[in-house]
Amino acid sequence: MSDGLHFVRRIRTSPYFNRVRDHGVSGYSVYNHMILPKSFGMSAEEAYWHLNEHVQIWDVSVERQVEVKGPDAAKLVQWLTPRDLRQAIAGKCYYIPVVDANGGMLNDPVLIKIADDHFWLSVADSDLLLYVKGLAIGAGFDVTVTEPDVNPLAIQGPKAEAVMRDLFGEAITKLKFFHFDYVELFGTRQLVTRSGFSAKAGFEIFLNESSLAEPLWDLVWEAGQPYNMLPGGPNLIDRMEAGLLGYGNEMTAENNPLEMGYGKFCTLDGSIDCIGLSALQRIDTDGAARMIRGIRFDGSPCPPCYVPWPVSVGSQRVGQITSATFSPRLNINIGMSLIDRGFWDAGQTVTIHLPDATMRQGTVCHLPFATNTD
Amino acid sequence: MSDGLHFVRRIRTSPYFNRVRDHGVSGYSVYNHMILPKSFGMSAEEAYWHLNEHVQIWDVSVERQVEVKGPDAAKLVQWLTPRDLRQAIAGKCYYIPVVDANGGMLNDPVLIKIADDHFWLSVADSDLLLYVKGLAIGAGFDVTVTEPDVNPLAIQGPKAEAVMRDLFGEAITKLKFFHFDYVELFGTRQLVTRSGFSAKAGFEIFLNESSLAEPLWDLVWEAGQPYNMLPGGPNLIDRMEAGLLGYGNEMTAENNPLEMGYGKFCTLDGSIDCIGLSALQRIDTDGAARMIRGIRFDGSPCPPCYVPWPVSVGSQRVGQITSATFSPRLNINIGMSLIDRGFWDAGQTVTIHLPDATMRQGTVCHLPFATNTD
Repeated sequence: MSDGLHFVRRIRTSPYFNRVRDHGVSGYSVYNHMILPKSFGMSAEEAYWHLNEHVQIWDVSVERQVEVKGPDAAKLVQWLTPRDLRQAIAGKCYYIPVVDANGGMLNDPVLIKIADDHFWLSVADSDLLLYVKGLAIGAGFDVTVTEPDVNPLAIQGPKAEAVMRDLFGEAITKLKFFHFDYVELFGTRQLVTRSGFSAKAGFEIFLNESSLAEPLWDLVWEAGQPYNMLPGGPNLIDRMEAGLLGYGNEMTAENNPLEMGYGKFCTLDGSIDCIGLSALQRIDTDGAARMIRGIRFDGSPCPPCYVPWPVSVGSQRVGQITSATFSPRLNINIGMSLIDRGFWDAGQTVTIHLPDATMRQGTVCHLPFATNTD
Repeated sequence: MSDGLHFVRRIRTSPYFNRVRDHGVSGYSVYNHMILPKSFGMSAEEAYWHLNEHVQIWDVSVERQVEVKGPDAAKLVQWLTPRDLRQAIAGKCYYIPVVDANGGMLNDPVLIKIADDHFWLSVADSDLLLYVKGLAIGAGFDVTVTEPDVNPLAIQGPKAEAVMRDLFGEAITKLKFFHFDYVELFGTRQLVTRSGFSAKAGFEIFLNESSLAEPLWDLVWEAGQPYNMLPGGPNLIDRMEAGLLGYGNEMTAENNPLEMGYGKFCTLDGSIDCIGLSALQRIDTDGAARMIRGIRFDGSPCPPCYVPWPVSVGSQRVGQITSATFSPRLNINIGMSLIDRGFWDAGQTVTIHLPDATMRQGTVCHLPFATNTD
């Protein structure tokens, strides 16, 4: 299957995959050892406009849950992240950087606090399950750490709310961003969040029963027909305009949360105990050496970026672009970049070095692109 | 790039990738967050015959190393696996199952013992790095755990020895299977193992300096010309005939090493302390509930297996096939399977249920296929 990608069991398909295939999936990524459907015959730009005007159904089963449950669950989850979770309440979601002893990013999950002793870490593309298992075994925490049979289905775009209202009633539309609630589905209880990897977000149904995947897809698809629903997937143009960083793209274990602009999620005064605290305190004292920024740059629509592109000022390398696209809304190329101290002010002019050895002129700006003009 | 797979930085290309692309790579897998080149225009069967007769150069940079170094390194590595490493010697490689507290397989790396306090775990497709980091932090081991800049290049096939002799002299041909030595390369010292994911194995050069990747590729390619060298990658037909199991394909965390036929790598008498020991002792006492086996089955060449295919006897489900291919040498379809106790004897007839709802008749056999006729 697929001209480029060999299908094997090691890279799992989701329980929605029969439907995804029936809809003519044409482009994939691989994420958390699973197939992530990305495109369905349209160009990224066509899909982007559709997503911004209508509603899409996305199979985001790749968003795996690490379930941490038991007497020591809260202690372990707090130890994982510099974000202060002492006031965290059940029913809410929290974006948490997870770092190693050096302060290097290992993942940036969304923490779903289900109960005081029960959490899901909705993870980006690394096996956070193994890290949490290792910590729990090593430190002897009284917890169970598992990957439950949960396969999220996302409903994204401005008409997502209307679809959800038709499906589950008015109450679900009152759900605030990064909160969750439960809905009844075929006699089961399913967790629904207001979230998603798109500019305007939407809803995600964390289906906990694989055998209901095709019935759920069909139900959502039917409800979406009056609203011009199409199948889709996380869209590069949309997420870049919105300034959404991708683990593995904008950051790896080589990066710390402070240079990713996540200082607001780091409580470093010693009031919480977390892995990497002293490393992050040192970085904070010295000041970050580089910072996440946007770059607008000219010329024809740029190629995809899959090897970091060097960014220079004069003869000095001052950073790199890690994701890039042409923005149809801004009518210019945009790149996510990490820029050295002294060069990260908005308005700084830079040169971008593409893999074909051509150069482009660009300007540093703050994120997100869509709302920041400086 | 590629019709099916979207290229992004998150799925890294290796330092050999320019050469791989110049050679016309046509099929990929994704493994340890990297592109694994699989095919170069030939069919799997053509590549299989070539591999069995000549020599191939494979970019297997996806085979990442987890480096464990320091005073507690040996203790931590032994804790990771039920395989008894007390007599392990520097200069040798050891296949080690790595399990969690329940005895579930988390990875099946090759352990390279560089020195008494210095190990590489050459890992299959899961982030074992995060598990080892978690254990080290949780238990407070005095070690450093890193992923070094090492990108293995494999030379596989019956003429691999001749190529290596021409490149590095007679001494390297004396290297025994699963041993390693060092060679001089452009003034640097590089670790070379006699190993590889093919039936007859070959050599792997664990290049520790990315900037030398293209010069190394060119050197090997030149040396391979008299021997009909072609670029290639791990070949499904070849590895299946040889009975080589793939982590993520034949086994996941749902499987224990005893049912994978790795009892010989499990010392369960209590003389070593390892994670999962009591779980494995329980399984060993009860006897494995299922066992890895081959199945030969009839009919036209089977499609690729990327969702496990149920295997039944009468109306009873007795197992599943996890990888399958037509074997041109045996002139029959072969499948790797996990078969329930009571049905795993060689000669047991079974029915295989393909995804298109057709059925095939098959017979259980021992592995490897190529040498076992029962």
